[in-house]
Amino acid sequence: MTGPRYTPLAQSLPSTVPFVGPETQERKSGRPFNARLGANESVFGPSPRAIAAMEGAAREVWMYGDPEMHVLRHALAAHHRVRPENIVVGEGIDGLLGLLVRLLVGPGDAVVTSDGAYPTFNFHVAGFGGTLHKVPYRGDQEDPDALIARAAETGAKLIYLANPDNPMGSHHPARTIARMIDAVPEGTLLVLDEAYIDLAPEGTAPVIDPEDPRVIRMRTFSKGYGMAGLRVGYAIAAMPLVTAFDKIRNHFGVGRIAQLGALAALADQPYLSEVVKRVAGARRELSQIARLNGLTPLPSATNFVTIDCGADGAFARKVLAELIARDIFVRMPFVAPHDRCIRVSCGRPQDLARFAATLPEALAAARSAP
Amino acid sequence: MTGPRYTPLAQSLPSTVPFVGPETQERKSGRPFNARLGANESVFGPSPRAIAAMEGAAREVWMYGDPEMHVLRHALAAHHRVRPENIVVGEGIDGLLGLLVRLLVGPGDAVVTSDGAYPTFNFHVAGFGGTLHKVPYRGDQEDPDALIARAAETGAKLIYLANPDNPMGSHHPARTIARMIDAVPEGTLLVLDEAYIDLAPEGTAPVIDPEDPRVIRMRTFSKGYGMAGLRVGYAIAAMPLVTAFDKIRNHFGVGRIAQLGALAALADQPYLSEVVKRVAGARRELSQIARLNGLTPLPSATNFVTIDCGADGAFARKVLAELIARDIFVRMPFVAPHDRCIRVSCGRPQDLARFAATLPEALAAARSAP
Repeated sequence: MTGPRYTPLAQSLPSTVPFVGPETQERKSGRPFNARLGANESVFGPSPRAIAAMEGAAREVWMYGDPEMHVLRHALAAHHRVRPENIVVGEGIDGLLGLLVRLLVGPGDAVVTSDGAYPTFNFHVAGFGGTLHKVPYRGDQEDPDALIARAAETGAKLIYLANPDNPMGSHHPARTIARMIDAVPEGTLLVLDEAYIDLAPEGTAPVIDPEDPRVIRMRTFSKGYGMAGLRVGYAIAAMPLVTAFDKIRNHFGVGRIAQLGALAALADQPYLSEVVKRVAGARRELSQIARLNGLTPLPSATNFVTIDCGADGAFARKVLAELIARDIFVRMPFVAPHDRCIRVSCGRPQDLARFAATLPEALAAARSAP
Repeated sequence: MTGPRYTPLAQSLPSTVPFVGPETQERKSGRPFNARLGANESVFGPSPRAIAAMEGAAREVWMYGDPEMHVLRHALAAHHRVRPENIVVGEGIDGLLGLLVRLLVGPGDAVVTSDGAYPTFNFHVAGFGGTLHKVPYRGDQEDPDALIARAAETGAKLIYLANPDNPMGSHHPARTIARMIDAVPEGTLLVLDEAYIDLAPEGTAPVIDPEDPRVIRMRTFSKGYGMAGLRVGYAIAAMPLVTAFDKIRNHFGVGRIAQLGALAALADQPYLSEVVKRVAGARRELSQIARLNGLTPLPSATNFVTIDCGADGAFARKVLAELIARDIFVRMPFVAPHDRCIRVSCGRPQDLARFAATLPEALAAARSAP
């Protein structure tokens, strides 16, 4: 008995996973984290109205969710002043990125991203056999000109850009993104990942004609809305592209609690504004903590602050390890030169107090480590 | 601007969807259904302990779910007396079927199923370019011998069999399935969809060595456990196959509420037993209603009863339309000769009372329709 015959592509894929979860680290240490500041979750939690909606939906979860997600799509359309036909909802941006790559990318097809950008996008491109071309950041920002140039050079089907950026927290103003869209090569699609846009300064989100066939923008309820564990993301795109998702998506994949929770969260914009304020306060506080420890906080348009530890990747990795050993969950960029930094999510005052209390020890330990 | 360049496969796919949801029908009629008995959901709802767990998790949904689903996988492993390494959890059986097909099936690869069996499986096979070979049912049962023979003949990578069967409600005893597994051709994998197994008679689920490389069995929290809108399914398979899912799955796709709800539901086996009893009662009641109306209920090992309307597909479609026009949501098999039937899910006494009150009118209207 030889077992199943995998496709050649499936056989060639590694078993690596994009991220190790904090729960895995907790199981390893045998202790829960004291502060959960590593996955850019919103420690402030979801809107009380969304919590009530999810609680109410729990009792009705015997029903499948509406596979067309009619009500949620209409609400999102009204919110963004587009048509419902321009909205596709999926199992987080992660899920939508997987479907998008599947629609466009086959073995050997070129895809362009930044070296150090979102690993889960790369995971999907590899998963469908695409060839990933990476361009370096320019300083701590993704480089629109370089992405466009490489796409033209390689005939790429897709360009990935996150604005604001993760893991560096930087952003481009709307006019830069608008110019970039105008430069997208014929037959290339720009994936504009706006997961953090709710936390960015005014003027970061460009005005985009929803029927523009050159760009798909992705949004999520995981960050500003504080519902990462609900798994609801959506994309705004031209109608033919939205329709194409219907050919392959898991039609019942976004369940009833997820749809009703997202709907209630969207309706509570005052709560989102409140979170935006708290996030801004936490960014200032995190930056202050960094400076007090002789480190350099980078400017952030997101719900995290990337902190330059002032040396190389080896040193930052030591700082990270010492923080984790002291039960503070944080992460860091994967590639040089950004791996000179650690990345700390915004938290409540008590979370930041724990980080502030622990960072000096962690730094001292990292400096004295062999 | 020409827009994105789809893969040839994506371009060739139709925009059809496996199922139209009841919400779409309600929007069309402008009225809610009086009885929701069409999607084999469990009208009895989830365990109160699961409801409490989901309510509690709503507040914590700012956290991503554990991507390894460690606790849930360990609980499922203990429940089934297998190792956690034999369990993969995903976004419903639908999601797992999509991943499984993706791992094994490329353009032109042969896959075998029964004509009239689960359309979502066919949707996934088409979505990855596989060639679907369909064998007829034998009477109202899927035909293991014919499935095996066709797989041998076509060199199929996958065979799909649901036991108990949907949409006919029939089942094979464990020994038939065990014999079938022993006959699976070298290099073929049997997908044993056991979505309805919790509702089947004792002796329907075969004992399977979890490391047997010839079979993957799929289970769900959507049917007996009453949580269709939560989207949690799982598969039991040999470790190498389980590991292969990690290469392509949406690692954070099963969220926090979903994991905690499923865990609590699994722990409440007394509630599941109670549901099994109520389902059995509802099956008897539905069968009685059918007989009182001169129709023939088929034996059922599931949470629905398939009712032979005693004529052809055209007549059953009329009966279905008349029921829906009277706000009773039911469905029916897609292909002849099974489309002589309608399929009615088990419900609470009030749901069945509405069905009982409506069926005579619907039949009369169907009989007098042109």
